[in-house]
Amino acid sequence: MKAAVTAHPRYVVSEIDPRLYGSFIEHLGRAVYTGIYEPGHPTADANGMRRDVIDLVRELNISIVRYPGGNFVSAYNWEDGVGPKHERPVRLDLAWHTSESNEVGLHEFADWCASANTEMMLAVNLGSRGLDEARNFLEYTNHPGGSEWSDKRIANGRKEPFDVKLWCLGNEMDGPWQIGHKTADEYGRLAHETAKAMRAFSKSLELVVCGSSNAKMPTYPEWEATVLDHTYNEIDYISLHMYFDNEANDAPNYLAMSEKLDDYIASVAGVIAYVKAKKRSSKQVYISFDEWNVWYHSKEKDKKILGGNDGWPFAPPLLEDIYNFEDVLQVGLILNTFIRRSDVVKIACLAQLVNVIAPIMTVANGPAWRQTIFYPYLFASLYGRGNALDLKVESPTYKSIVAGDVSYVDVTGVHDTKTGHVTFFAVNRHSSEAIETVIDVAGFGAADIADYQVMTHADLKAVNSAENPGNVVPKKGSGASVAGGKLSLSLPAYSYQMIRLKV
Amino acid sequence: MKAAVTAHPRYVVSEIDPRLYGSFIEHLGRAVYTGIYEPGHPTADANGMRRDVIDLVRELNISIVRYPGGNFVSAYNWEDGVGPKHERPVRLDLAWHTSESNEVGLHEFADWCASANTEMMLAVNLGSRGLDEARNFLEYTNHPGGSEWSDKRIANGRKEPFDVKLWCLGNEMDGPWQIGHKTADEYGRLAHETAKAMRAFSKSLELVVCGSSNAKMPTYPEWEATVLDHTYNEIDYISLHMYFDNEANDAPNYLAMSEKLDDYIASVAGVIAYVKAKKRSSKQVYISFDEWNVWYHSKEKDKKILGGNDGWPFAPPLLEDIYNFEDVLQVGLILNTFIRRSDVVKIACLAQLVNVIAPIMTVANGPAWRQTIFYPYLFASLYGRGNALDLKVESPTYKSIVAGDVSYVDVTGVHDTKTGHVTFFAVNRHSSEAIETVIDVAGFGAADIADYQVMTHADLKAVNSAENPGNVVPKKGSGASVAGGKLSLSLPAYSYQMIRLKV
Amino acid sequence: MKAAVTAHPRYVVSEIDPRLYGSFIEHLGRAVYTGIYEPGHPTADANGMRRDVIDLVRELNISIVRYPGGNFVSAYNWEDGVGPKHERPVRLDLAWHTSESNEVGLHEFADWCASANTEMMLAVNLGSRGLDEARNFLEYTNHPGGSEWSDKRIANGRKEPFDVKLWCLGNEMDGPWQIGHKTADEYGRLAHETAKAMRAFSKSLELVVCGSSNAKMPTYPEWEATVLDHTYNEIDYISLHMYFDNEANDAPNYLAMSEKLDDYIASVAGVIAYVKAKKRSSKQVYISFDEWNVWYHSKEKDKKILGGNDGWPFAPPLLEDIYNFEDVLQVGLILNTFIRRSDVVKIACLAQLVNVIAPIMTVANGPAWRQTIFYPYLFASLYGRGNALDLKVESPTYKSIVAGDVSYVDVTGVHDTKTGHVTFFAVNRHSSEAIETVIDVAGFGAADIADYQVMTHADLKAVNSAENPGNVVPKKGSGASVAGGKLSLSLPAYSYQMIRLKV
Repeated sequence: MKAAVTAHPRYVVSEIDPRLYGSFIEHLGRAVYTGIYEPGHPTADANGMRRDVIDLVRELNISIVRYPGGNFVSAYNWEDGVGPKHERPVRLDLAWHTSESNEVGLHEFADWCASANTEMMLAVNLGSRGLDEARNFLEYTNHPGGSEWSDKRIANGRKEPFDVKLWCLGNEMDGPWQIGHKTADEYGRLAHETAKAMRAFSKSLELVVCGSSNAKMPTYPEWEATVLDHTYNEIDYISLHMYFDNEANDAPNYLAMSEKLDDYIASVAGVIAYVKAKKRSSKQVYISFDEWNVWYHSKEKDKKILGGNDGWPFAPPLLEDIYNFEDVLQVGLILNTFIRRSDVVKIACLAQLVNVIAPIMTVANGPAWRQTIFYPYLFASLYGRGNALDLKVESPTYKSIVAGDVSYVDVTGVHDTKTGHVTFFAVNRHSSEAIETVIDVAGFGAADIADYQVMTHADLKAVNSAENPGNVVPKKGSGASVAGGKLSLSLPAYSYQMIRLKV
Repeated sequence: MKAAVTAHPRYVVSEIDPRLYGSFIEHLGRAVYTGIYEPGHPTADANGMRRDVIDLVRELNISIVRYPGGNFVSAYNWEDGVGPKHERPVRLDLAWHTSESNEVGLHEFADWCASANTEMMLAVNLGSRGLDEARNFLEYTNHPGGSEWSDKRIANGRKEPFDVKLWCLGNEMDGPWQIGHKTADEYGRLAHETAKAMRAFSKSLELVVCGSSNAKMPTYPEWEATVLDHTYNEIDYISLHMYFDNEANDAPNYLAMSEKLDDYIASVAGVIAYVKAKKRSSKQVYISFDEWNVWYHSKEKDKKILGGNDGWPFAPPLLEDIYNFEDVLQVGLILNTFIRRSDVVKIACLAQLVNVIAPIMTVANGPAWRQTIFYPYLFASLYGRGNALDLKVESPTYKSIVAGDVSYVDVTGVHDTKTGHVTFFAVNRHSSEAIETVIDVAGFGAADIADYQVMTHADLKAVNSAENPGNVVPKKGSGASVAGGKLSLSLPAYSYQMIRLKV
Repeated sequence: MKAAVTAHPRYVVSEIDPRLYGSFIEHLGRAVYTGIYEPGHPTADANGMRRDVIDLVRELNISIVRYPGGNFVSAYNWEDGVGPKHERPVRLDLAWHTSESNEVGLHEFADWCASANTEMMLAVNLGSRGLDEARNFLEYTNHPGGSEWSDKRIANGRKEPFDVKLWCLGNEMDGPWQIGHKTADEYGRLAHETAKAMRAFSKSLELVVCGSSNAKMPTYPEWEATVLDHTYNEIDYISLHMYFDNEANDAPNYLAMSEKLDDYIASVAGVIAYVKAKKRSSKQVYISFDEWNVWYHSKEKDKKILGGNDGWPFAPPLLEDIYNFEDVLQVGLILNTFIRRSDVVKIACLAQLVNVIAPIMTVANGPAWRQTIFYPYLFASLYGRGNALDLKVESPTYKSIVAGDVSYVDVTGVHDTKTGHVTFFAVNRHSSEAIETVIDVAGFGAADIADYQVMTHADLKAVNSAENPGNVVPKKGSGASVAGGKLSLSLPAYSYQMIRLKV
């Protein structure tokens, strides 16, 4: 089989926002405790943060980390997580039916972000709380000093404001599972008034309003239309979430799901345009896709705890999906979709980062290791920065149930004009055939292959583990060549590859 | 006159829920202070609880007691009633225009319930407060320990959780008189989200949503339809209230009012069925009739205090209806209605228990005594447990204004299969004629009269008092016989009777 | 030109409520700090209150002063302003982007009012807060003692309750700029429930519900209809606000604006009548016009601070309009309008009193001085008490854009039956011609001119200042005479006059 691709430096979708490579740490399962934080661990720093995890996070070059939830935030009192640790209350977290010690809170997480070379994206609680607590949280976090809440921050040991720019107005407020769930009108009003109060504090904040938790919500897309109608001129982003599963164990359909993601984004971009027109607004709202990943491997196992049949454990293993090779392809396809839609998707958060549906896993008092999906995320984060190219792709297709005709070859290209590189990320969805692919890169002038990494595996279900972390890893690719303005390479059956040209 | 009744052990309405014989203690008037609690009283126990009152409550064998309101709860801070007594705040109770010392709160009431051999049914405040305070209250009350609020309970001297199963989501929220009154939509949403948060704590809770305060509310029955539409799948019971008065001094109509009660229950059962169908739900919601009684004797007297013309007195006499013999008949008729509707009414609370429209009265620093209505409630509570029989009753009738044709004879039967008893509760509404009544009990096999108690009085307005507590009391009946599978007895004019067969 | 006016003691619009001459102190700019309060000032009393300002306020004979906002109140915690001063928090005021030290709060303001011989009109926060905090504030302020909040007041040094009768249910809640802005339905419900809880505390309170912030609000007058529909039977006044500007520098139209004010009042009076009819209510709701003034001179200067470009300054100069002679005419016209509509307008508050769009200005550590508009307000406040006369006025007119035909002569008369005076307040809107005016006062019998004050100036833009506070001041009038039951006087071009007869 063959595919033909055309790339040209003048055909650009958008400059990619670095925050497309964000992630997420929620107070959930072992994300925080024995994840990023484990005071007794051999690698723990003075704050009790695992240095081995920090090193892996730094390797991923993550731009922002959303915190502290997720569903958790909808009944969270941010004050519980500041002040002397021995005075912090233990809370029952109703979202995940666990106990929360509050040993980690705003200060600890901020320090961790600094160590991990990333920035915070904070969420305010619009489930059990509202405007008043949000404005206090903001003042505590961002005001230099001389006011009640900012002086408390200073008294708690942090002189400089945290200066967090990006704030989520609650989490998945369309979801009936949310503590303090709201209707679209209820949430739209609350989010609007909270946004106004936050902007009255600082005009330069960037605010994210909740869109749909997934495209199958019965309220989608009316939720978006209603919420944006209430909030359009006070907010900057609308949040979308989507999780992918292969419960049906049907690889062709599983790998077609990124087309549904593409539809979802396109539809919400349409809703944004509709409300923008309705408001006669010159302001452009964008999408923050602040939760995405594969999530299903652990669901059966989690039912006991989440159903409340295990009491209120502290930091139990939850949502510890072990990812396989198939999921590498899926993650590659999702990232390609975000790159292609980078004109409307400005922020995206891999949910999550450590232990909880995560690329990085830890063993308590043991090692940290990389899951299979670590790698496609790594390559995109490292090299997917610059201009997203508007590629012309000709590829054979197959029929899928979930998305009709789907190309076997899914490819994106990113042009880093600063370093002079063009990088292609390609997935071959074909189960058995390699696809000979030619990419016309003549528009970039002379080009040499600078790096070429391939991931493929005989077993779609192959996984990594603490004991065998090298089972599913990228390997140096071979056989690619550039000649006459054309990059030729062969995409093996069921494969992910990153190929990087110096131009 | 003659009446014929057929009873059969296989014709059963429902097994009666023991909680049909519940009651209610509100922080109102002298219900708590100088009612159940009076530290200086000669009979006071170590907690300051009157032992003489406890003994009378134990005599009534009450299954549950609703607490702490009533209208009181809609502006109540539950935290005010816990912790060291000398630190508890004095509050102005806006519902009853009195001062609340908070000397009695959750702990004291729980201990009292244990002494009185009954259980708590607690109400959360959905008037001035919401979800967040409700979840804290629940955690304080029911969580074993190791969390902020449960540890406070332990610090306040109570190691074991109170483990309260039955919770009211506010009180009479349809009533414009309520502090923080809600529309049906406002309340439905709030109750739903609060119920969800409470269930996230524990799935095994039983939750009661507010129905109408009475059938004459202009919002009835749309209130029920709307509230259930919001909450159906998260709640277990819908609450109804009804009070009876003979302001018109018209006994035939007064005694016909239980037919209106029957209509009210039937109608709300219909609304439940409607919403159940609409929700395609397999769950069955039942009725908690958690306020009922005769209430009118004291209304004129209470106007001064309730109108705010007496400042903010502490524990003044309020709602101290003195019940007469006529009210004995009414209470008997009401209880019969609940027994007949025990397939849909699972919980009922006589409102209230001590001093405030109550069967038990106290004199401060003096005796406790039984009102007239003590007795029909006593007999139903003691013997109205088991299977409510589906009786076939043929009785002469009279025309009433309030309910059309009404049978002179109102009778229910309860079959206690454990002890082998069948008990009949009968009221004769006829002002002047006895009614010769034959009950076919052949289906139960051999039967002997085990007990037979009759209440009748020459004066419908006769009352009991502290000085003369024996004026209106039951007397041993005579002249009843069982022969040929038929129980024959004569029901005197204006009479209540309980007749108990060993089968 | 000539005008003819007829006055008669039997033709009365209404007795004027003394509260028509109210004013307003908001925590805004220098109204409080370096306005009424400046501890180091040479004239400061023991409480740090400037005696020079108090003297000017006493001179104005102000009946009530609204406090503490305005927009400020919508995110204000009243508790911040009570208790030991060194424990009071510094807050960021989101309404005016300044820091609030809370050195002045309820107690200090109450003492100031006593010194200034005026009374408090308090506002509760219905922006970021609700019913619960309002009832606590009320209990703290008005309850004699023996309850939690009243005992805190006593502990804070104030034994007697403040006994405030007049309460605003929030401020300008129709304004999208308000922290915690509400829709008409949201506000109507909240105001109703808050009013009910406040009335449950005391039936004798007078409650003011928010009407429109101005007649150009897109929600006007539907806001009034909706809010009154929710609240009619629980409230006493509906609040209106209006500010006047001459941005266009077009005197004829500027001076016609009081006709728009008249329309505004008439329209809302109509809405009141409509809702009264709809409710079948016997209760009459009136208008509290609790913010009015000229406001535009300072707007350009304030943009930097209000836009947040100056950080969070403490008590910066804000809204420090310097009023000119033209504004004297405007204020005279506005006051005349209120007098004419005193049958429906019972309360009116000049916004504001000191430094902030105010008749009284201060120099920090320097003198206090009277703005031009001090005088027409002074005369109305001193002499505009008694019966507002229903005058018959015949005057030449001019065409205005804002209000069609407008009389050159605008005049009102007030009959003080206690002291036996009739006072006329007259404005001549003509730019160049005097108007010979004859007022028929024969109905009052013998009459003598007791006082006659005229304000006129060659320069419409003439102002007063700290250095030259006597530039625009009233002067003794001359040439008026009473003869044959007729008062004759000549109104100079662009003039304001007060003429007072002893009858």
